[in-house]
Amino acid sequence: MYSHEYLFDFTSLIFQKMGCSKADAEATAKVFLAAELRGLPSHGMIRLKDYFELWKAKRINVQPNVRIVHESPTTAVVDGDNAIGMVAATKSMQIAIEKAKNAGTGWVSTRNSNHYGIAGYYSMMALEHDMIGICMTNANPLVAPTFSISRMMGTNPIAVAIPTGKQPAFVADFATTPIARGKLAVSEKKGEKVALGYVQDKDGIPTDDPSILSKGGSMVTLGGDYEHGSHKGFCLAAVVDIFSAVFSGANFGPFVPPSVAYLPVLDKKVGEGTGHFFGAMRIDAWQEAEHFKLKMDEWIETFRNAKSAPGSPAIVIPGDPEREKELLLKKQGIPLVPAIAQDVKNIADFFEVDFEMK
Amino acid sequence: MYSHEYLFDFTSLIFQKMGCSKADAEATAKVFLAAELRGLPSHGMIRLKDYFELWKAKRINVQPNVRIVHESPTTAVVDGDNAIGMVAATKSMQIAIEKAKNAGTGWVSTRNSNHYGIAGYYSMMALEHDMIGICMTNANPLVAPTFSISRMMGTNPIAVAIPTGKQPAFVADFATTPIARGKLAVSEKKGEKVALGYVQDKDGIPTDDPSILSKGGSMVTLGGDYEHGSHKGFCLAAVVDIFSAVFSGANFGPFVPPSVAYLPVLDKKVGEGTGHFFGAMRIDAWQEAEHFKLKMDEWIETFRNAKSAPGSPAIVIPGDPEREKELLLKKQGIPLVPAIAQDVKNIADFFEVDFEMK
Repeated sequence: MYSHEYLFDFTSLIFQKMGCSKADAEATAKVFLAAELRGLPSHGMIRLKDYFELWKAKRINVQPNVRIVHESPTTAVVDGDNAIGMVAATKSMQIAIEKAKNAGTGWVSTRNSNHYGIAGYYSMMALEHDMIGICMTNANPLVAPTFSISRMMGTNPIAVAIPTGKQPAFVADFATTPIARGKLAVSEKKGEKVALGYVQDKDGIPTDDPSILSKGGSMVTLGGDYEHGSHKGFCLAAVVDIFSAVFSGANFGPFVPPSVAYLPVLDKKVGEGTGHFFGAMRIDAWQEAEHFKLKMDEWIETFRNAKSAPGSPAIVIPGDPEREKELLLKKQGIPLVPAIAQDVKNIADFFEVDFEMK
Repeated sequence: MYSHEYLFDFTSLIFQKMGCSKADAEATAKVFLAAELRGLPSHGMIRLKDYFELWKAKRINVQPNVRIVHESPTTAVVDGDNAIGMVAATKSMQIAIEKAKNAGTGWVSTRNSNHYGIAGYYSMMALEHDMIGICMTNANPLVAPTFSISRMMGTNPIAVAIPTGKQPAFVADFATTPIARGKLAVSEKKGEKVALGYVQDKDGIPTDDPSILSKGGSMVTLGGDYEHGSHKGFCLAAVVDIFSAVFSGANFGPFVPPSVAYLPVLDKKVGEGTGHFFGAMRIDAWQEAEHFKLKMDEWIETFRNAKSAPGSPAIVIPGDPEREKELLLKKQGIPLVPAIAQDVKNIADFFEVDFEMK
């Protein structure tokens, strides 16, 4: 087990060794650790190698000039200057929050960025400012629209964080697909089949083979099939893609660049890098702040008291499982599976810094 | 078949007879006809009787003072004064558009309203202003969160309309459930079973019985079950409810008042009436307007060219089916089933105005 402080300091140091400023390295490490602590290790330390390889391949800019290139009183288009996604995204969300301070709401679409970790992190940046936070991103194309077999979109997540009073914050953070891609990889490694309704083969036939993405298959959108509303999942994924990439001038849909160095740069570009979308709304733009929080508490208490089906667990308020996981892992430490710890150790060795294998 | 002009004039006249101003009656009739023309008759003329009965029961205000009660440079809370939903919603979206003219974006949350017809209509109001339009609403509780058997939410739809150049506008308008409620009613009338994955019985067991809502059952959220991401559908429905009702001070979740007079007013209130949420964003707050439209055309053309699965239809761009239906019905006329035409005729007789049965 590793303490989150240990992994934070280590991760920050590695990004500084790559050439990042201390501030940028810390901003990046914060998102890595948020993913680990919130129980989303698929976006945590396992990704350090991806960024390291992108850096070695000179495909990522560690001294970027992240800047506004177009704006209105409440909106900004940010050029991420090919930064590490966490650096471009943190700055972009800060801009959204600043705009909201003046105008009630602030909205930012960011181009020329890279994979940014977990969407929930940026939406939660708004909470300490008594603001609602919204965050979306497009991602590597793995998902086919309804009726299609073409991989046109990423798992395009949406995150919404809403301040509360006594209750913990409402934090929804979800892919617009039935499952996250990481779950397929886990099942594949274990040699297990997956439920039908997650993926289809190259001809569009539903399959339980979690390795189908390497055989020309694709993931489906939330809903699963047309009969069960997959076209609604497609609408959502499309809105995320357009807000993130058409608004900003990033690559959209099938042209989103790979987030790993072992995949080649795409031949065709329709914009710059990966795209994200951020929103911040002051709660007192809606209701007096204390009243807003009271009503959110009332909303959460109402839904927490919904009756469970016989044999089912209690209702889950968005953000509950991640918060509980964070409390647990802060106390007991973060486990790293040996293969990932070894990858991290290899990076430490490259930079001649210490990393304890445990 | 009825011409849309005939039904528009008739519907407007009926609302004037109820006491609405000509402007309010026309605003309302426009939404009725948009629903009919866009192939959503479940939100069209069939609803005239519901409004008529609410009016007879004095449960709806035909001379409302729809007004801003709280605002920031980019946001407003609107009190609908218990207006017909279409009246409160049209005014609210106009306010969002006015805010966006000045500040780049405008956002309105509306309380004390009623059922407003189709969400897509209000999002599309933004298009002629070269703005992106967003609209959501909460609705009568019929839907259970993941793991629950309590009817806590409506089918809480989301609509997003985005301007384009040569391509027709992108218009997504979808419930956050696998199917619309109207589909259950149709299957029930035909005596048909429905697919599994739409509804559950009073104990949370999936069922193919479309009449289960009258037996203590509930609809499920988009995703269908936990294994296939119904908690993501719940996140979406929750966000719609909070943006529409907590932001504005409307009734949320299980407390949303019934949209029909044959259901009693609820004992408990946590706010005023039904809640909606509206957004408008100038496209030139993101990119120079002509460039934005070119990129949207490119996005649509890219997705239109996605490969269909063998035997499947072509990819559907959000808004395609409704637009095609509208072209067809404007030419061939709007059919009304005899039972609905008779209901409409009875209302006409009540007000001593003409309505042709055909």
